Amino acid sequence: MPDKQKNIYTNNLKVAKYGNKAWQKAQDMGLIDLGVIRKRNKLITKDCHEFINMANFSYLGLDTHPKIVQGAAEQVLKSGSLDQPTARLRIHLSDIDDAEKALSELFEGFVLTASTCSALSEGVLPLIASGVFTDNQKPIMIFDRFCHFSMSITKPICADETDIITVPHNDLEQVEDICKKNKYVVYVADGAYSTGGSCPMPELLKLQEKYGLYLYIDDSHSISTLGKNGFGYARSHLNEINERTFFVNSMSKGFGCSGGMLLTGTPNYQDFIKRFGGPIAWSHPINSAGIGGILASVKIHFSEELVILQKALQKNLNFFDSLIKTNQLGSQIPIRIMELESKEDPSIIARKIFDKGFYVAPVSFPVVPKGKIGLRMMIRSNLTLDEIKQCCEIINGTVNHY
Amino acid sequence: MPDKQKNIYTNNLKVAKYGNKAWQKAQDMGLIDLGVIRKRNKLITKDCHEFINMANFSYLGLDTHPKIVQGAAEQVLKSGSLDQPTARLRIHLSDIDDAEKALSELFEGFVLTASTCSALSEGVLPLIASGVFTDNQKPIMIFDRFCHFSMSITKPICADETDIITVPHNDLEQVEDICKKNKYVVYVADGAYSTGGSCPMPELLKLQEKYGLYLYIDDSHSISTLGKNGFGYARSHLNEINERTFFVNSMSKGFGCSGGMLLTGTPNYQDFIKRFGGPIAWSHPINSAGIGGILASVKIHFSEELVILQKALQKNLNFFDSLIKTNQLGSQIPIRIMELESKEDPSIIARKIFDKGFYVAPVSFPVVPKGKIGLRMMIRSNLTLDEIKQCCEIINGTVNHY
Repeated sequence: MPDKQKNIYTNNLKVAKYGNKAWQKAQDMGLIDLGVIRKRNKLITKDCHEFINMANFSYLGLDTHPKIVQGAAEQVLKSGSLDQPTARLRIHLSDIDDAEKALSELFEGFVLTASTCSALSEGVLPLIASGVFTDNQKPIMIFDRFCHFSMSITKPICADETDIITVPHNDLEQVEDICKKNKYVVYVADGAYSTGGSCPMPELLKLQEKYGLYLYIDDSHSISTLGKNGFGYARSHLNEINERTFFVNSMSKGFGCSGGMLLTGTPNYQDFIKRFGGPIAWSHPINSAGIGGILASVKIHFSEELVILQKALQKNLNFFDSLIKTNQLGSQIPIRIMELESKEDPSIIARKIFDKGFYVAPVSFPVVPKGKIGLRMMIRSNLTLDEIKQCCEIINGTVNHY
Repeated sequence: MPDKQKNIYTNNLKVAKYGNKAWQKAQDMGLIDLGVIRKRNKLITKDCHEFINMANFSYLGLDTHPKIVQGAAEQVLKSGSLDQPTARLRIHLSDIDDAEKALSELFEGFVLTASTCSALSEGVLPLIASGVFTDNQKPIMIFDRFCHFSMSITKPICADETDIITVPHNDLEQVEDICKKNKYVVYVADGAYSTGGSCPMPELLKLQEKYGLYLYIDDSHSISTLGKNGFGYARSHLNEINERTFFVNSMSKGFGCSGGMLLTGTPNYQDFIKRFGGPIAWSHPINSAGIGGILASVKIHFSEELVILQKALQKNLNFFDSLIKTNQLGSQIPIRIMELESKEDPSIIARKIFDKGFYVAPVSFPVVPKGKIGLRMMIRSNLTLDEIKQCCEIINGTVNHY
């Protein structure tokens, strides 16, 4: 039994004691675990409360696009099953190959899909940590402090392969220091952060050029919403994807489907990942409905419709920004966090806004600085200007009392 | 930078050097990464080779059941999307509640679903390791050496919370020794192993009764195939599920759908798991097609049809056993591994069988003892006796040359 230091990366007892309080408050205020049905642009709870969901990350409204919904349903019937019940590595329905080919063309790289984006990071990050993709030399793995849970949960697994370091949010000075001292360095970060803002992609690419830095970027919150073909924030900074850059993206957000994709500049990593990439190897792939949705969504992404939806989103973001000032003012990434100087529990404020017809997500430290509280809003192309105006008026009217 | 021991749990460079050889051989023999289309009970490769898939783990043939396929497609249309694009913890389509209620009634416990069974283990095992479910005392976590990758991948995460021990396969003497010395002990194992055989459930329940042992059992390969309502191997040993037993099951095997389920004897763990259970909290849930499939599959499980399918499976297993002797002879669990005394690569033998129309999975150490090779066959209710006879004749005729 190894007698080694515990709770370097996680401490669920501490979480249970402290972190759970905010969730319990949200539960007490009836703000979580809401089972709903959909009614046009609104959702309805079991007790018939109608509301507009401002925590909806389908930024282009593609989740309810008739072609995607129809494509998903038809693919299930065409496949004659939800899945081909054998390890994907051995045998899979060829529609998965078609979907990956279509995604590869769309995002101009090489795409490997999995049931979720989280499954991809659980599978790929430990392989990267081992050195199999860096000339069999173990790289230093740097995790941005705010990188998504789906990546940070793998820290102990990666730490069993190599040394890992967590750096303050967007602290590129420290990243550069590590690059100066080590030949193989991997930086793990979000493209667009669900906590607001983005990674400094131009500066990261400069470090890549100067030191050969490897990048592993989860850009789930911006794909589809921005750039040519819906490249998103991070991918848009590269003409061609180089061999030192890995993108992972959820397809359940802007893309409007379900599942996750790994996007690289070379197909060379794929065989090893399919064989040894954790859940990519042994868990089931995206089901046939997801595959049908992807095939339909790719067509929309290649069409003029995407440009129209992207413009509608930016118009809505500009309008929102004219009514509520946040630190994300002017950002093309559709997440806004309103910070409040208050000692009130943010769930109490969010509940008052919810009662008036809008669900906004209450957030606390570390998403906002210590001593502050926050409300998070996700802006979509399929909100009307009237709805945004009404939402902002309700938010402003409510927070003025705190 | 912590200077601690590496590669205690994983060593992907070693895997790349040694373990990859068998997969490369299988690739060279055209036995992996097969994209196929379905044609009745057969699959067809891109180069028009027709075969029967003996690596298909849809043991009751439910994956292609018209009611499940139809239910999945209709649910997508009814939901009007693949997903409700908000963290499930906050807002989800109420059909997920309906599916979990139906599954809870079927398996007579409390069910929480997630996108995959693997996501559940990634989320739940680290929480168990922390002590939040064991009176805030960190338990010793014992992993069976052969427990599925989806559980063993979490070892480094669990080891950051508590001490973990890997024991030889089914070595209950060692488990009992640990129980004698520690108040809180969790044993992590498969119910039915994909490598053949099962955990000794009656003996484990005796240890539970005597020492309060906690059990975390992944029974993906037996649910639906056996027992009342398709309880499967492990669940069938309990009348009521006690508070010290956690079951996880994939719903993409015997159950015929996609997604995973956690089954417990109390609802008390659910709130904490939904909030802090890794991908259960932040990754997307089972998509609407999967939910529709589940609702349809539950109805089949409650009907006489399940009993008929279970009997057909046992009849096929008995017939297979009369033609090929394996260590699993007479087992009700539908996995058979034929061991061969040969130095040949098992992919070469599997390829010859594949050429004659049957896909069997080549396996090596540690699935079979050192110095041996093996072929794995999964038996289904939807194979005819003629197909089984033909398959066994081809296998016997081929292996006789080695």
